[in-house]
Amino acid sequence: MGMSYLVYPGAHHTRFHHAIGCVHLMQQTVNVLRFKGVAISEEEETGLFIAILLHDIGHGPFSHAMENSIVNNVSHEDISLFFMERLNEEFNGSLTLAIQIFKGEYQRKFMCQLISGQFDIDRADYLKRDSFYTGVAEGNISSERLITMLNVVDDDLVIEEKGIYSVEKFIIARRLMYWQVYLHKTSLVAEQLLIRVLKRAKELFDNGQKLNASEAFLFFLKNKITHDKFNNGTLDVFSQLDDYDIISAIKHWQYHGDFVLSNLCEMIINRNLLKIKIKNKVINENSLNKHLDSFKKKYKISEEEARYFVFTGSISNQAYQLNTKRVNILLNNGKIEDIVKASDQLNLKALSKPVTKYYICYPKDKL
Amino acid sequence: MGMSYLVYPGAHHTRFHHAIGCVHLMQQTVNVLRFKGVAISEEEETGLFIAILLHDIGHGPFSHAMENSIVNNVSHEDISLFFMERLNEEFNGSLTLAIQIFKGEYQRKFMCQLISGQFDIDRADYLKRDSFYTGVAEGNISSERLITMLNVVDDDLVIEEKGIYSVEKFIIARRLMYWQVYLHKTSLVAEQLLIRVLKRAKELFDNGQKLNASEAFLFFLKNKITHDKFNNGTLDVFSQLDDYDIISAIKHWQYHGDFVLSNLCEMIINRNLLKIKIKNKVINENSLNKHLDSFKKKYKISEEEARYFVFTGSISNQAYQLNTKRVNILLNNGKIEDIVKASDQLNLKALSKPVTKYYICYPKDKL
Amino acid sequence: MGMSYLVYPGAHHTRFHHAIGCVHLMQQTVNVLRFKGVAISEEEETGLFIAILLHDIGHGPFSHAMENSIVNNVSHEDISLFFMERLNEEFNGSLTLAIQIFKGEYQRKFMCQLISGQFDIDRADYLKRDSFYTGVAEGNISSERLITMLNVVDDDLVIEEKGIYSVEKFIIARRLMYWQVYLHKTSLVAEQLLIRVLKRAKELFDNGQKLNASEAFLFFLKNKITHDKFNNGTLDVFSQLDDYDIISAIKHWQYHGDFVLSNLCEMIINRNLLKIKIKNKVINENSLNKHLDSFKKKYKISEEEARYFVFTGSISNQAYQLNTKRVNILLNNGKIEDIVKASDQLNLKALSKPVTKYYICYPKDKL
Amino acid sequence: MGMSYLVYPGAHHTRFHHAIGCVHLMQQTVNVLRFKGVAISEEEETGLFIAILLHDIGHGPFSHAMENSIVNNVSHEDISLFFMERLNEEFNGSLTLAIQIFKGEYQRKFMCQLISGQFDIDRADYLKRDSFYTGVAEGNISSERLITMLNVVDDDLVIEEKGIYSVEKFIIARRLMYWQVYLHKTSLVAEQLLIRVLKRAKELFDNGQKLNASEAFLFFLKNKITHDKFNNGTLDVFSQLDDYDIISAIKHWQYHGDFVLSNLCEMIINRNLLKIKIKNKVINENSLNKHLDSFKKKYKISEEEARYFVFTGSISNQAYQLNTKRVNILLNNGKIEDIVKASDQLNLKALSKPVTKYYICYPKDKL
Repeated sequence: MGMSYLVYPGAHHTRFHHAIGCVHLMQQTVNVLRFKGVAISEEEETGLFIAILLHDIGHGPFSHAMENSIVNNVSHEDISLFFMERLNEEFNGSLTLAIQIFKGEYQRKFMCQLISGQFDIDRADYLKRDSFYTGVAEGNISSERLITMLNVVDDDLVIEEKGIYSVEKFIIARRLMYWQVYLHKTSLVAEQLLIRVLKRAKELFDNGQKLNASEAFLFFLKNKITHDKFNNGTLDVFSQLDDYDIISAIKHWQYHGDFVLSNLCEMIINRNLLKIKIKNKVINENSLNKHLDSFKKKYKISEEEARYFVFTGSISNQAYQLNTKRVNILLNNGKIEDIVKASDQLNLKALSKPVTKYYICYPKDKL
Repeated sequence: MGMSYLVYPGAHHTRFHHAIGCVHLMQQTVNVLRFKGVAISEEEETGLFIAILLHDIGHGPFSHAMENSIVNNVSHEDISLFFMERLNEEFNGSLTLAIQIFKGEYQRKFMCQLISGQFDIDRADYLKRDSFYTGVAEGNISSERLITMLNVVDDDLVIEEKGIYSVEKFIIARRLMYWQVYLHKTSLVAEQLLIRVLKRAKELFDNGQKLNASEAFLFFLKNKITHDKFNNGTLDVFSQLDDYDIISAIKHWQYHGDFVLSNLCEMIINRNLLKIKIKNKVINENSLNKHLDSFKKKYKISEEEARYFVFTGSISNQAYQLNTKRVNILLNNGKIEDIVKASDQLNLKALSKPVTKYYICYPKDKL
Repeated sequence: MGMSYLVYPGAHHTRFHHAIGCVHLMQQTVNVLRFKGVAISEEEETGLFIAILLHDIGHGPFSHAMENSIVNNVSHEDISLFFMERLNEEFNGSLTLAIQIFKGEYQRKFMCQLISGQFDIDRADYLKRDSFYTGVAEGNISSERLITMLNVVDDDLVIEEKGIYSVEKFIIARRLMYWQVYLHKTSLVAEQLLIRVLKRAKELFDNGQKLNASEAFLFFLKNKITHDKFNNGTLDVFSQLDDYDIISAIKHWQYHGDFVLSNLCEMIINRNLLKIKIKNKVINENSLNKHLDSFKKKYKISEEEARYFVFTGSISNQAYQLNTKRVNILLNNGKIEDIVKASDQLNLKALSKPVTKYYICYPKDKL
Repeated sequence: MGMSYLVYPGAHHTRFHHAIGCVHLMQQTVNVLRFKGVAISEEEETGLFIAILLHDIGHGPFSHAMENSIVNNVSHEDISLFFMERLNEEFNGSLTLAIQIFKGEYQRKFMCQLISGQFDIDRADYLKRDSFYTGVAEGNISSERLITMLNVVDDDLVIEEKGIYSVEKFIIARRLMYWQVYLHKTSLVAEQLLIRVLKRAKELFDNGQKLNASEAFLFFLKNKITHDKFNNGTLDVFSQLDDYDIISAIKHWQYHGDFVLSNLCEMIINRNLLKIKIKNKVINENSLNKHLDSFKKKYKISEEEARYFVFTGSISNQAYQLNTKRVNILLNNGKIEDIVKASDQLNLKALSKPVTKYYICYPKDKL
């Protein structure tokens, strides 16, 4: 949830909760599918449990911000895989099947789809959990009902026809959570500030400035992390990194001599964020420049420095991806159809149109 | 909820619960609107509370079935009004304003819209309540959030822009509840049986046969109830009628000599209902006739009698009515737009297309 | 819950809900015990499920009132047993083990204790359920946690030491539900009225008066029901009896010529009950006589008739029965002790002292 | 909740949640009392809201551990008061009444009792909240019901007689939460380790060793904090201190050269805690010495060092304090009695006996 707790103070749940919750839902799923006659061996069951337990283990602290700044060449999925492979060595190959499932390479496709698909166990857990902890009740979904509607045909995951309204509601709920929570303007601006803190810190570090931070955090600021160099040593350091490293550093850096770094950090710590405006159209260049100029003059800083505080961007969400990862409905007559066709309404088709919004951020009158 | 408890055994909540719940939500609504600066006098507040408390009082037992059989000339809204007028006499005119609001005649339109509109307090309560008691979690809506988004412009009810996703979800939830609960095929067939029990009983009664039932129930079987003849005496009798009268009579009638009446009653009491099939197209005449013929022959009964057990019909639902009773969104820029336009998606437009389904009912092999 | 809905309008849950809930908890219990290594065969499992599913099937409508008036020689446990034996015939002896468990005759004692003991599945379900539907949150217990603490030693049911606080809270919650819900003064007076309605109806019937009621209900008013005469025919009639028969009859009898019957019935239907006072001491005779005299004079009725409206009685509850049906705690050191000894507090000993209260009922000024 | 999340992973709620929750309950309380005719002026209302909002603001990170190690001369209540006084200056005296209430010096005693008493708003919130987040359902209380039962007689807080069972259950729930959550053996040992980390760090610092930590944390390790020296400067530093400072330091110190410090820190971070045994009797000296000797030998460390890992202690809880801060019951007859007398049971008397338990901690075989 990144910095969402700045908007929804209840949102203090952790990835550990999510991982445990996912295993719980996967247990239900295996029971439901077996009850319907889908053969799942004990080995496959264990593979599913491990794959879902570890699917997010590669997320570092404030993962989305880090991926957009200092670890920008290695995705969290890659890192999850590094962890699984490392554990696979330690546990003498007993994660081999889990890894195949996680990588989407296992021949029984539905197992991969349960880990990562348009409707998967990951989403079934986090939508419900985030809805609960933020209090945004409309994001609530009935994971139990959805799981009860699952079935498998030719090793492909399908949802039974009578679950069609539940799937629609799941898609709507997800869309609502995107606009109302994950892309909430205050979370968005906080995350953008955090990205800029990390970038600026790396920049200063590269310029030889001294920065106070934990060993683990310094490692990632100091080294260019690439897929190739992500060896076991890197993994060890990565595993030591958590929210405490990042936030403590930001607390320190409030008092750093650099105008940009200290101000960005202070904004986050004191929740004294930039102003943000969200529009349906691309932000006008003039508007951006006006804010840039005025800020540069006021604080006698360079354009480059000012751009840390005045910037534009876009966010977008597509409630339903038509082409990739379809949600297949098993009709009562035995045929299988994409939900967009199976539904009695045009609305799902409508939901597959991506929606993009544009934002501009700039400082309030007083820093 | 009529006979929904045959499908959802938890659905044992009562109209009394709903009436109290509506008053509770109306209290919240008045608080929210006043907080936003909408002037509501004490007299108007009381009027709103009374109007919502009594809006459903004209519903008799199994109201929808009765309106489609023995009280088919007087709607429950009419009867609610009769009750209010009667109470208005007893309470020296103190319900006058409530009656104006209920009839949609009060000049401050938003008050009428809160009682009966596309989004009104009635729906805010019953959707949440029915979702809870049936366990159909996807029908759950966040009444509190929706109410918090309400506002009034020029005495017209509007919903603030940031509530737009909540309204969409409300419309989707309502649609889901229709197909999954209110029009569930088992509830539907039970309700159709009940309608036929009531019709048959009236028919037998008109033909001079003796039927065991409470005085109040007999009154409605004996007399043709019309709007004109619905005097205070009729209202008194109506007020004595409840589920106990109807179900006790059906329990008695299981043992009546008439083939049609006794079999219909026995089907309801023992939950041994007709088979029902739901299709997207009009039911084929041949299919109907085949079932009719076979049933006539098997029990040596007339066509007219057989038609009580073999019949077709249709159900339809329009998630959002485009033309009547719009949901107006108050945009951040102060303008007001229909939600269909204001939403960033085509899906609401899609939802305003009515959906009709067709069904056929016929007996299982063994009555 | 008898007439508790007159006090707690939410209390509209049914015995069917309770029966299903009990089976659900029994499934959890079997899983927990097997996980701890307690051997339970498939046949025993089925026996437990059937025994708990049917344990309350002998409860007729308003069971406690009926047992105290017209079916006063046969307990609901007896009738449950009659049903099970009947079903055992129909299902070729497959309920034999369930019956043994239900009768407390199965050699593996813990199975009988799960059906009926100081802490049993019945209570684990109804306390939680009644607490939920009445809204008396303090009666809530954590059935899941309690079940997780169960274990079996030498075929005796025990609770593990770390569950000791949960058991204490269960006992306290049960006591609270007794005084606050089951023995609530308004429910109490309504139940006493119902008992008197049933007695008076039987009396009138015995004196040859005509009474309108369903066939099934008349059967029980007409015949003296004893254990010996409770044959299959009686069971059939009993199975047709439900709340609808009783309430419909009471609705009819409001208009009966008998002063006593009609007034008692009217009081129940219009929730216009007697006044009730609850004291810690036995009610003074003088007080009773004063009310009797004044009521006799006012309505010119006999002492016998007046005693239907003016009467005293007592209620009592013992939160924990010391001598019978102990709750055994399995200490960490492997020893077993009664919870009263095992607890670090004297309060459970205190709770084993029965508490009795006394009440007087008499009419309000205006009937 | 200190380190409870090591036992109950859901327990990630914050003091901010608690503060907001307390204000919410205080709003309800003011409404209830005013509805019952207790005069509360607007100024007093604001005073109550501020006092309850800020009552816990003096809690630093891991407050109980800090109070038992590095800030051991100044209680969190003192620090809360320092904050309120500072804010009172900034807001021109508008907290004066709140401060009087908080200090228990306001003449209308019930206001002080609502902030700090045997039953107060603080407890009403935290018991319910901690029960919810830990999942220990038995600790749940019905704050709403308890608040509804409050009343005031002669400016003294009382609970109405019909709330007596709810108060009993509140006391029982609190006792249960103490033994099951707040004094859970794993939380206890983690907290004891934390206390020893802080003590050792201070010791090393006093001996001139270098320790990596945030400025704010170093300030408290460096200076002896006393009531007299707790000036505005100290308060500023204190306000910057949060969990991030403590946990980051512990993460650093895992790699410190000192055997004691590094091992204590590593135990906390990796949740590799000491063994703990809890007994009803004082721990035997021999037992302690045996563990000390064996540990000293194994790692060749001094007795003083070993005592950081091998130690005994005691915990105690008194569910109800008889003499101080009584819970007064307003009987139906208008008299006021201590709940211990008013209850129909001896169990509350029993609960006023303090219960003490004793523990010993020592390392597992492998550090």
